[in-house]
Amino acid sequence: MRKQARLPQMTVGILGGGQLARMTVEAANRLGIKIAVLENQEDSSAGQIAAFEIVGHWSDLTALESLIAISDVITLENEFVDYQVLQRLEATGLPVYPSALTLRLIQDKAVQKQTLGTYGLPVPAFATVNTPVEIEAFGEKYGWPVILKARRNGYDGKGNWKLDDPADIEAGLKALDKGLGSLMVEAFVPFVKELAVMVVRRPSGEIAAYPVVETVQRDHICHTVQAPAGVSAEIAEVALTMAHSAVEAVEGVGVFGVELFLTGEGIVLINELAPRPHNSGHYTIEACPSSQFDNLLRAVLDLPLGETGLIAPAAMVNLLGQHQRSGGPDGLEKALAVRGASLHLYAKAESRPGRKMGHVTALAPGGTSDEALKIARQAADLLEY
Amino acid sequence: MRKQARLPQMTVGILGGGQLARMTVEAANRLGIKIAVLENQEDSSAGQIAAFEIVGHWSDLTALESLIAISDVITLENEFVDYQVLQRLEATGLPVYPSALTLRLIQDKAVQKQTLGTYGLPVPAFATVNTPVEIEAFGEKYGWPVILKARRNGYDGKGNWKLDDPADIEAGLKALDKGLGSLMVEAFVPFVKELAVMVVRRPSGEIAAYPVVETVQRDHICHTVQAPAGVSAEIAEVALTMAHSAVEAVEGVGVFGVELFLTGEGIVLINELAPRPHNSGHYTIEACPSSQFDNLLRAVLDLPLGETGLIAPAAMVNLLGQHQRSGGPDGLEKALAVRGASLHLYAKAESRPGRKMGHVTALAPGGTSDEALKIARQAADLLEY
Repeated sequence: MRKQARLPQMTVGILGGGQLARMTVEAANRLGIKIAVLENQEDSSAGQIAAFEIVGHWSDLTALESLIAISDVITLENEFVDYQVLQRLEATGLPVYPSALTLRLIQDKAVQKQTLGTYGLPVPAFATVNTPVEIEAFGEKYGWPVILKARRNGYDGKGNWKLDDPADIEAGLKALDKGLGSLMVEAFVPFVKELAVMVVRRPSGEIAAYPVVETVQRDHICHTVQAPAGVSAEIAEVALTMAHSAVEAVEGVGVFGVELFLTGEGIVLINELAPRPHNSGHYTIEACPSSQFDNLLRAVLDLPLGETGLIAPAAMVNLLGQHQRSGGPDGLEKALAVRGASLHLYAKAESRPGRKMGHVTALAPGGTSDEALKIARQAADLLEY
Repeated sequence: MRKQARLPQMTVGILGGGQLARMTVEAANRLGIKIAVLENQEDSSAGQIAAFEIVGHWSDLTALESLIAISDVITLENEFVDYQVLQRLEATGLPVYPSALTLRLIQDKAVQKQTLGTYGLPVPAFATVNTPVEIEAFGEKYGWPVILKARRNGYDGKGNWKLDDPADIEAGLKALDKGLGSLMVEAFVPFVKELAVMVVRRPSGEIAAYPVVETVQRDHICHTVQAPAGVSAEIAEVALTMAHSAVEAVEGVGVFGVELFLTGEGIVLINELAPRPHNSGHYTIEACPSSQFDNLLRAVLDLPLGETGLIAPAAMVNLLGQHQRSGGPDGLEKALAVRGASLHLYAKAESRPGRKMGHVTALAPGGTSDEALKIARQAADLLEY
């Protein structure tokens, strides 16, 4: 099926056409690889620049068939694609990475935590819950607050609800608005830092990881990333080892974002695993010889992985929508004038409060990631979407 | 005419669809800028990935009109476009950078040298020649060998002929195969190094330069580039100042490659000026916060120029065609396995001996450009087109 190492003829199909697929197109262009995206709406962020744009939902068989017809391998840019869709794709004989198995082990967060726990990896205490009584029992056992979570389809804080005490249970259940059986509850981890590691893995098992980074969320959305993380070499080593193991635990092939908590006692726990390029890895475009997008392509095409070391301390700041409106950002000329800031604008037709519209990266050769953050933030603060 | 700083709606038209336009598309994607290319053949290197692909020659009025209709500004990727075509474009009111004036001062190499000389810049001795007798007289005056050159349309050594003594004149004239009146002759400069500087300049006159680099030609084609050049700070300063002045001399707007000779006596001379992204600036994609392609877009859209400093010592090696054939390169898997090498494949349908098919860049953070060159060369040597 594969055209051996003749990249200019290869097409990688992506389920989804958002900014992660867009940045994958950018990486693909350098290697002469073509990208086909499947996305609900025309002129999606990635659809605008991909070689092939197929409009349709991933549950739409005709659209899937069009994608299959032109792709040498299929990957995805979000974990909400039902794993049964991937099974259907796999049944055609086409390589699909991450696999249906991997997605099944990840997309239900309770199954994910169970899988990681069974593999011996430390995760916060958790339980699937079907009744308010079970939530209360969990809180009594592990202490309040607890986090009530939708087991599927949550992202950027959507689908999570913090319960400070039993009195919050009713409101939490109402907020998540799911039928019983689709929820889980987790012990609240009083972390001092959130860390993340991007891991890439080939079908052969060849694996590589990017440096441990520190992420800061604002309103549950990734706000800034600093590379490397300001942690000891020992903690970084623990985080890297866990991230490797987590991807092996789900038999992952492709690129994976592993989110971790670091507690005041120096304990590292796995928070979540994303089976795709991750916001915490955008800095790799400028800061590493091979970006997470470049390595996603290499991994799914079963090509040697690229170097993941850090060229210089780096930082990234997200550009989030503030208004409901269309068009480019205000303040662009001023932001472009910030020396050393690299702007990435996703060309989405509409901005909405909290929507990811772009990001800014800066490097600080010979300096620190704090210095890089200052530059990136200066540019980001000048932009308004 | 310009849509003020609302980039996602801007389209930059490019006359030409080769690898320089292709890498400009890659830079444009990050900023949500659209590119329209005008190129003779369908599926050109840039046409494959540009938002708009117009097939036609730049002398074809219908094709030009299509380009004008969708572009906010027009630029070019080679200096062979007749300046009168640019005059016609300018007459429509559309911004055209580099301008017709700049191109007129550059595309005839005798006019270019005259312009630079008049501006007080050191260039090799030269003369326009119409007869063999004039060539011989020039050689007697400035010494042999001399370089016989086509005044227009030469590149990568095509259009240049070295005359070791008067006996070579006849063969030289035959080789260049031009009518009399289109030739010039230059003193041969016994250089010890060839240097190059990329300069970017906005309509407002804001100007910036990338570091001085050292280039090595093989068979008159750029083979390797090392940044920074291994020259003293004084010589680098002289080269930078000359490069700035050269671009100002031709009232250049856009990005310019300034090729220089360094003699054993430490004298710097200007060899040639290219009014477009330049092979000696490809390393800037990885090695500088804003690449030459990013800054080309900023310059022609009259936006603030991006930072041109070096993140780390860097080197670039060209991938030249060795065979007449179609398809991707051999040896790709091995080349991708070279840690730290960044491959750029131009996705040209056909390879030909000497044709530029791609390039490899490597950085050496905390190291030297020699170390970077070793990595880039290792990967390049594994690839065969």
